[in-house]
Amino acid sequence: MHFASDNWAGVADEITAALRRSAGGFCTAYGESPDDRALEQTFNDLFETQVNLFFVGTGTAANALALTAVNRPGGFVFCHQNSHLIEDECGAPEYFTGGARLDPIAGDNGKMQPSALDAAIARFDPSFVHHGQPMAISVTQATECGTVYSIEELQAIAAIAKRHRLPLHMDGARFANALVHLDASPADATWRAGVDLLSFGGTKNGCWCAEALLVFNDSMAESMPYLRKRAAQLFSKTRFITAQFSAYLHEGLWLRLASHANAMAKRLADALGTHKSVRLAWQPQSNEVFVVMPKTLADRLQAAGANFYPWPVTDDVRGSMEPGEGLYRLVTSFATEPSHVDDFVRLL
Amino acid sequence: MHFASDNWAGVADEITAALRRSAGGFCTAYGESPDDRALEQTFNDLFETQVNLFFVGTGTAANALALTAVNRPGGFVFCHQNSHLIEDECGAPEYFTGGARLDPIAGDNGKMQPSALDAAIARFDPSFVHHGQPMAISVTQATECGTVYSIEELQAIAAIAKRHRLPLHMDGARFANALVHLDASPADATWRAGVDLLSFGGTKNGCWCAEALLVFNDSMAESMPYLRKRAAQLFSKTRFITAQFSAYLHEGLWLRLASHANAMAKRLADALGTHKSVRLAWQPQSNEVFVVMPKTLADRLQAAGANFYPWPVTDDVRGSMEPGEGLYRLVTSFATEPSHVDDFVRLL
Amino acid sequence: MHFASDNWAGVADEITAALRRSAGGFCTAYGESPDDRALEQTFNDLFETQVNLFFVGTGTAANALALTAVNRPGGFVFCHQNSHLIEDECGAPEYFTGGARLDPIAGDNGKMQPSALDAAIARFDPSFVHHGQPMAISVTQATECGTVYSIEELQAIAAIAKRHRLPLHMDGARFANALVHLDASPADATWRAGVDLLSFGGTKNGCWCAEALLVFNDSMAESMPYLRKRAAQLFSKTRFITAQFSAYLHEGLWLRLASHANAMAKRLADALGTHKSVRLAWQPQSNEVFVVMPKTLADRLQAAGANFYPWPVTDDVRGSMEPGEGLYRLVTSFATEPSHVDDFVRLL
Amino acid sequence: MHFASDNWAGVADEITAALRRSAGGFCTAYGESPDDRALEQTFNDLFETQVNLFFVGTGTAANALALTAVNRPGGFVFCHQNSHLIEDECGAPEYFTGGARLDPIAGDNGKMQPSALDAAIARFDPSFVHHGQPMAISVTQATECGTVYSIEELQAIAAIAKRHRLPLHMDGARFANALVHLDASPADATWRAGVDLLSFGGTKNGCWCAEALLVFNDSMAESMPYLRKRAAQLFSKTRFITAQFSAYLHEGLWLRLASHANAMAKRLADALGTHKSVRLAWQPQSNEVFVVMPKTLADRLQAAGANFYPWPVTDDVRGSMEPGEGLYRLVTSFATEPSHVDDFVRLL
Repeated sequence: MHFASDNWAGVADEITAALRRSAGGFCTAYGESPDDRALEQTFNDLFETQVNLFFVGTGTAANALALTAVNRPGGFVFCHQNSHLIEDECGAPEYFTGGARLDPIAGDNGKMQPSALDAAIARFDPSFVHHGQPMAISVTQATECGTVYSIEELQAIAAIAKRHRLPLHMDGARFANALVHLDASPADATWRAGVDLLSFGGTKNGCWCAEALLVFNDSMAESMPYLRKRAAQLFSKTRFITAQFSAYLHEGLWLRLASHANAMAKRLADALGTHKSVRLAWQPQSNEVFVVMPKTLADRLQAAGANFYPWPVTDDVRGSMEPGEGLYRLVTSFATEPSHVDDFVRLL
Repeated sequence: MHFASDNWAGVADEITAALRRSAGGFCTAYGESPDDRALEQTFNDLFETQVNLFFVGTGTAANALALTAVNRPGGFVFCHQNSHLIEDECGAPEYFTGGARLDPIAGDNGKMQPSALDAAIARFDPSFVHHGQPMAISVTQATECGTVYSIEELQAIAAIAKRHRLPLHMDGARFANALVHLDASPADATWRAGVDLLSFGGTKNGCWCAEALLVFNDSMAESMPYLRKRAAQLFSKTRFITAQFSAYLHEGLWLRLASHANAMAKRLADALGTHKSVRLAWQPQSNEVFVVMPKTLADRLQAAGANFYPWPVTDDVRGSMEPGEGLYRLVTSFATEPSHVDDFVRLL
Repeated sequence: MHFASDNWAGVADEITAALRRSAGGFCTAYGESPDDRALEQTFNDLFETQVNLFFVGTGTAANALALTAVNRPGGFVFCHQNSHLIEDECGAPEYFTGGARLDPIAGDNGKMQPSALDAAIARFDPSFVHHGQPMAISVTQATECGTVYSIEELQAIAAIAKRHRLPLHMDGARFANALVHLDASPADATWRAGVDLLSFGGTKNGCWCAEALLVFNDSMAESMPYLRKRAAQLFSKTRFITAQFSAYLHEGLWLRLASHANAMAKRLADALGTHKSVRLAWQPQSNEVFVVMPKTLADRLQAAGANFYPWPVTDDVRGSMEPGEGLYRLVTSFATEPSHVDDFVRLL
Repeated sequence: MHFASDNWAGVADEITAALRRSAGGFCTAYGESPDDRALEQTFNDLFETQVNLFFVGTGTAANALALTAVNRPGGFVFCHQNSHLIEDECGAPEYFTGGARLDPIAGDNGKMQPSALDAAIARFDPSFVHHGQPMAISVTQATECGTVYSIEELQAIAAIAKRHRLPLHMDGARFANALVHLDASPADATWRAGVDLLSFGGTKNGCWCAEALLVFNDSMAESMPYLRKRAAQLFSKTRFITAQFSAYLHEGLWLRLASHANAMAKRLADALGTHKSVRLAWQPQSNEVFVVMPKTLADRLQAAGANFYPWPVTDDVRGSMEPGEGLYRLVTSFATEPSHVDDFVRLL
């Protein structure tokens, strides 16, 4: 009953097999091999545009480098108050950018409230240097609440970005899970909706270690080869990421893996939704299920072998919680089997 | 005839097999699984001491984080003038440390001349803030010239570090190759000789992507968990590095791989040494062979399919070079076969 | 009717006279002259302890360097949500520290609520690297609301700092104004109450440009000479600051100047307090008076020649404001004359 | 007999008088007062172009901010190997830029050898990210050897900058002294010769503390208001710098002060040049005189009350020095009187 995180899961067979096939022979390092080039073309085809593709080692690196590419002195990045950028990167965005600030934007369901976002940006006056200046907007897709911005919601954010001439970054650590939910093309879900830079995650969805930064805006990509190398994120044997991503994107494997994870989340949510002591914090749209339940119940489940984490209570949930209750996160993955869900529900 | 770099080679079968074995099931992320713990013990046993072990994604990251851990404002790091730190990291050490400076130390054979090192450090006067201050010494083992500091040479550097109360870092991107040459224990070749921090590389010696920073001095390791996470170098599925290193260190695989690479380098050097138009720049002691030869000859070899790089001419070689000659690097690896060497020599 | 800011005022005659006296002859640069040494002794006497004294050019520099001296990777600085650090330094604290984050703490009257501060710090778990880690607490004295922490309130903050083993910094851009209000000794108002580092401002209280960082904790001062020089804050002709501070501290001039400014603020507040359309946002305890009044009234006053700024509405005032009202700041200084106040009140 | 440094001198009477005149009344802070605007016009007139003018606190700040404005990841700044940037700023350029590297360029007389400069830049290949990339050239005028680049020499450097599309910065800590020697207009000596950014120093030439960064290239100035504020270099009471510079530039005071200093240096050099145990290291062209003399003689002079510093021996002087000799620097200033020189010569 492993629902602690999708990074507790292992690796899809197809991906490990690809590594095995790629292990022999000699090839150019640092992203210059024919296989690396072929993968670039795969991304171009997938996104229906010329993509500037940069492998990195972690999602945090992709996020931090994206912001560094659009850095401004005294810069503010506007992102949801419970975003990974703010909560879980130990200051990497600030460190990589040499001190940009993350401005926490409120909003229910893990999504920035457009009016709050707009107000936060409007606070800045170009002639008043003391406050600093806006530099970027970052959305998380799927969100940290397991929800997904609709294309329309994304366009609303992008319109604000455009009005204030700000780059729009998307943290897509769980991009595949979001895309499956949206049932949209990668292009429609990103650059056609106004996204300039995308952290494209594979690790949480069945890879070993495969993360990339996709830059749709060419001018934002110009310095990236130097930014990445300077940040110690340029791998020598890039074949190890190329092999993973090639298998991941081959014949839709990535979407199948994500569909399965989402389906398992739905199975779990549906079962939990009928339980009298448990209620869903938000309606799951990807592979994360958040529930409010009595702490004593959570303790009992964990003692019985279920793995899942307590979660910091968010502003939109706080009001409805009773004393003794806690917020908990359960994450499914490509490796979650229906029996895991059923065992958990039975235990409950 | 692939002698371009050891990172053009693929991956040892044992290591890919270990990944396959490790691909299934659920386990704790971020270095907290039983396998991760077991590997820590393996390192402790290997180095005969309690090692602070930190996985990172690249050798550049290991080097840059090591220096960040011992950072000082206005700090100078003393390292060989042709070191990887200075030549090949696109400013990562300066970036990670927020501006430390690398002080290039002269010396033949890729090794810092102890007297030059001592003089460079002695230049600083603690009461004269304008110059900045010494903060660390870094040696590369094996060196960028394919040579290896003897234990005595290392101790001489360490004595200078000790006298000036400076931490001693070792860039061990090719540590296995050096160790095989020294025929010494890992402990004798590092902390017993005075090394405080070791960048321990596996990638160039048959891994996919396996690098670690080993910190022998506990106080220098204190902030490292935060430094590493902030630098976006904390992997979630650490099993992917743990599996590689476990196989790498199992029953001496790493030393067998390095021995083979070194033997291939010797075979190459021995054959080249008898050729009238080619001469060795330095006597190879690891898996890199540097030769001086006419550029026309090099061009002809490359045109015939041999892969190797021209190399920046160093101070100790410059004087002996004739017009029309160039310096070239040929690198062997675990994957180099005797026939590759023989084909190259035949071509020559 | 100049109430825009205390930095719109000029300079006290005694201070300009001291510059004139100091203009001739030759003396050692960079803080090493006999006059510089004598001033150090003056500070020691004034604070009844050995003070580590560092001149800097701006209050922002003093604040940012104080935090840099106690920097930690992924570090959080806890300070009031409307503090100068957060609102008015264009990211200097983040920039100088290479990415520390400022954690906004709520509290009425410009003062951090101790329970909110404690809760914010308690959120961090040393074993959970993703969140980052606490690194310092900073109080502003006098506050940005014109109020002053009592010694007891300060001690309550210091007790929290001590419990969490965090350094306590005080932004004393208006320290003299606070001290006059507290009627306490400099020692009692700072290090005896638990303050480790003090940004000691003279510019707003009648100097030309005289700011200093006072470090009471010796270990926190160790790297400061290098930190300051690296930050381009080491002046060559330090006599220009020494002369100012010597006159400033001579026979209590600084306290007389601040007393006058505070008295003018009281005169202004007393008069405004009786006006039916104007109400005090907070009870002034230093040289800043914040009022809520109709925007139309403010516009009329400004059109008639009164200089003062609208101010961002704070959380504790927002609830009591009517539509059409605004928050405004009026600042007095050593140069404010009773007639300025009376003219303003008459105009009103 | 004060020849230690021009920053040991005091302040010209006209400048202190200007401060006194400027001390009263109220005026807008942060560079927005009518006097500040008038000074901007003065600079425009003086340089015969629209100048972007930024006051800062130190020459180090001006230099470091100039480089930050043209920063690139993995960037190299090419400057003379004995430049102030490299020798005397405790890593400020690296710190402000977040890790740019200073590339020491050789050259006699404190001037970069154009061919060496060109070769250093040519080493970089845009497709080879590991080395980093060129980002700026910086000249020091007058040089650290007391010499002055002729307009033609400056144009030769500028031509290299242009060919490599690099910004050209001039460290003009002693710009007035250089200008007097060149007998050229400020425009001819800077932007007309190809200079993009100028650190314009007043402190060493009779001001208290008056430094500015002049940016001739508008696009390089765009971010500067934020860069400066973020670096804690935005002063509130800018009148204190405006008053100094206004007097400094009024009716050519700055050139008169510098002419006097240069004349005193010539008087000193002429006298020393005839002494048998002393020889000039370089022919003085500004207000610094460097001599080689026996250390015993230097010790005797210092014991007798002469203030001057020993100086690090440069590459172009080393070869001609005898055992027991040292290199020494003697600096004159606006405050040096002929009798100081004569006393020194007599002592000798």
